[in-house]
Amino acid sequence: MLEKLKEEVYRANLDLVKYKLVIFTWGNVSGIDRESGLFVIKPSGVDYDKLTPADMVVMSLDGKKVEGDMNPSSDTPTHLELYKRFPGIGGVAHTHSEFAVAFAQAGLDIPPYGTTHADFAYGAIPCTRDLSQAEIEGEYELNTGKVIAECFETRNIDYNAVPAVLVHSHGPFTWGGDAAAAAKNSAVLEEVSKMAYLSRTLGADEASRAIRKKHYLRKHGANAYYGQGN
Amino acid sequence: MLEKLKEEVYRANLDLVKYKLVIFTWGNVSGIDRESGLFVIKPSGVDYDKLTPADMVVMSLDGKKVEGDMNPSSDTPTHLELYKRFPGIGGVAHTHSEFAVAFAQAGLDIPPYGTTHADFAYGAIPCTRDLSQAEIEGEYELNTGKVIAECFETRNIDYNAVPAVLVHSHGPFTWGGDAAAAAKNSAVLEEVSKMAYLSRTLGADEASRAIRKKHYLRKHGANAYYGQGN
Amino acid sequence: MLEKLKEEVYRANLDLVKYKLVIFTWGNVSGIDRESGLFVIKPSGVDYDKLTPADMVVMSLDGKKVEGDMNPSSDTPTHLELYKRFPGIGGVAHTHSEFAVAFAQAGLDIPPYGTTHADFAYGAIPCTRDLSQAEIEGEYELNTGKVIAECFETRNIDYNAVPAVLVHSHGPFTWGGDAAAAAKNSAVLEEVSKMAYLSRTLGADEASRAIRKKHYLRKHGANAYYGQGN
Amino acid sequence: MLEKLKEEVYRANLDLVKYKLVIFTWGNVSGIDRESGLFVIKPSGVDYDKLTPADMVVMSLDGKKVEGDMNPSSDTPTHLELYKRFPGIGGVAHTHSEFAVAFAQAGLDIPPYGTTHADFAYGAIPCTRDLSQAEIEGEYELNTGKVIAECFETRNIDYNAVPAVLVHSHGPFTWGGDAAAAAKNSAVLEEVSKMAYLSRTLGADEASRAIRKKHYLRKHGANAYYGQGN
Repeated sequence: MLEKLKEEVYRANLDLVKYKLVIFTWGNVSGIDRESGLFVIKPSGVDYDKLTPADMVVMSLDGKKVEGDMNPSSDTPTHLELYKRFPGIGGVAHTHSEFAVAFAQAGLDIPPYGTTHADFAYGAIPCTRDLSQAEIEGEYELNTGKVIAECFETRNIDYNAVPAVLVHSHGPFTWGGDAAAAAKNSAVLEEVSKMAYLSRTLGADEASRAIRKKHYLRKHGANAYYGQGN
Repeated sequence: MLEKLKEEVYRANLDLVKYKLVIFTWGNVSGIDRESGLFVIKPSGVDYDKLTPADMVVMSLDGKKVEGDMNPSSDTPTHLELYKRFPGIGGVAHTHSEFAVAFAQAGLDIPPYGTTHADFAYGAIPCTRDLSQAEIEGEYELNTGKVIAECFETRNIDYNAVPAVLVHSHGPFTWGGDAAAAAKNSAVLEEVSKMAYLSRTLGADEASRAIRKKHYLRKHGANAYYGQGN
Repeated sequence: MLEKLKEEVYRANLDLVKYKLVIFTWGNVSGIDRESGLFVIKPSGVDYDKLTPADMVVMSLDGKKVEGDMNPSSDTPTHLELYKRFPGIGGVAHTHSEFAVAFAQAGLDIPPYGTTHADFAYGAIPCTRDLSQAEIEGEYELNTGKVIAECFETRNIDYNAVPAVLVHSHGPFTWGGDAAAAAKNSAVLEEVSKMAYLSRTLGADEASRAIRKKHYLRKHGANAYYGQGN
Repeated sequence: MLEKLKEEVYRANLDLVKYKLVIFTWGNVSGIDRESGLFVIKPSGVDYDKLTPADMVVMSLDGKKVEGDMNPSSDTPTHLELYKRFPGIGGVAHTHSEFAVAFAQAGLDIPPYGTTHADFAYGAIPCTRDLSQAEIEGEYELNTGKVIAECFETRNIDYNAVPAVLVHSHGPFTWGGDAAAAAKNSAVLEEVSKMAYLSRTLGADEASRAIRKKHYLRKHGANAYYGQGN
């Protein structure tokens, strides 16, 4: 079932390697079929060079494994919660990419220092609060998803305009229209994070609201004029 | 038309990838035919590995598309303004290379810390002022070019001796005798920017005027003796 | 003798190159056969691309060469002492990887800033005390092993939960169930060290005890649920 | 003439590319035949991928070109002066490698922070004084060599024990028994410089004299026991 989606999710997982965002088995991408309410995710702890499309695990949104011989990624409940809370997304990616992790470990938002950031997201990439001891000792991975959604709701951030988050002391999750877009956003986030690290250690301030709005809208707005209009 | 120039501009755009200055579609190079007053530029938002010489867009200096099936780079009006204001240049390149962007986002000139810089440029690489809200909400890309030219005029910098600029909160533009030289200057700027970042965080001061002058002139002056005299 | 172990140790030494942890001849991996009490180690100062399994040197735990045409790694007495003091380990690796060395040269533990660290080790990666002049001028490499073991004993650190150490002013040693696991732990340590450097320069604090415990145990505990249960 | 030496010097120049120490034409290596008093050096400003052994230029120690169609490296008088002042060396290399340049631009010695440094050099890698305006406007490249030699003499540094220097505001020169050793020392210096940058920004102090002496002598002393004794 969902063979085309499995193929897409498989390829998006390999994109993480191509983009040099993961080593060993660190990282996972999923994609959802909104009609059936099923999503497909990488199995847990399997080397990327041994992965095949048939290894992908099919899950339902109530957390049951629908198809697959292997255990799904241990981060599956986080993906699931994001699909529930952010109904417009079609794919989720998680990595431990170095510069994004550094901001997450420092508990810092990534401030919008310039147009590279604004081409990607409108506003800071938020860092969540710490999970409480009870949240960690309970359903940890599910609670990670809840804390991400809480962060966007409490701070009134539009998940369409900011397709990424840093989980405190942990690392980034990104999303997009499908699995490939989610993986690509992980690559853009890491590049933006590296630039932010360098800028911050040089003493940068946020870019003006006007230039950030201009860059975001020329690429993503209703009247976008970047690219070939498709 | 201008098939040779299209080929040159196409190759110079691929040089940005070879020099590891761009990811995805970030970056663009153009070249001008001064006799006809036409310039050739990369189409907007097209992957580098799908680009062909025939995809290059031909533009006139009054901003009209003369030939090409695709939209030109969204930064085209900036290139156009640079060709008008800097009549001695034959090519322009724009990237979001990491260390140059960091200085741009921090709003800092790149100080001439040593001879690697002086082999490239005589004096600091300037960072422009912020564009005003009106400049951003108006003809933004054209105004970017105007602010670059204003920066060189106000500060009395010779664009031949300093073939690069940082646009505040944005990133670098470089230029040269042709498209290939402009792209190469983007690579040299990024290397100089990285060295400047490392030097600055170690507490460096500018190199002496005497050694900077020596290095610039032994490579670029009338009596240059670096290289094979061609 | 021990042909299978020689092959394993040979491959684990090449892993250091694959993981980009060593240049020239810097680094060495060994593996032990606990039944016979013999361990196999890389010869000293031999280029990795000239190494063969037959070049591996077989040593006894009383420091005698049992088989091999070449001198063993000059760090052999350190490996030997670790096998004696840490009876549960099957392999040892030593590199001069850049970020781990930086913490060792600064005389700093690597604090557990986040979950990437906690997936690897439970608690800080300790940096040993400086060796005394007498320890250096005496049996230096043996004393290096003794100071590592002393560090774990004095600070009551479980070498199973923390499979790595930084030797003050020197660099990292890692260990694991076999030679390949020891080499892999060198790669993970370097990644964790780089993230710690970036996080520290951004002002990070340690991650909460609860999240570190959770991540360590979901991967390494009796009820681990990361991976495919093998 | 000197065909074997030309081949060696040609290969050592390509080593700079292999070690990722140079981009474009930045860098040069030479080697000397002490019997004839002639040395061989890379031509100026020629791309590494177009270089052939026959392009190498033969020079005498009084600065005359003895053989070769092209201009020698513009840094030739610096090499020449080093061969005169440091009679035990057989090869010289010059690069603009990033971390070594950063220390040179900051005007800082590279302190001996650990054993990686001590395996390479006994004591700090010195940074020269600034050249005076008169020295720069006069025979600049020759004076660069003189200032290097002055630095070692004034500070009583043994050029055999410290095979590298940083020229203030410029970059590193390294030397060795032959051209290949000089090039290899450029690679080791860059690695040591990167570790020093990271260590310094973490707040490191110099390693103890005892451990530095131990490491230097176990690899380079009369009773060295690192490697296979050849």
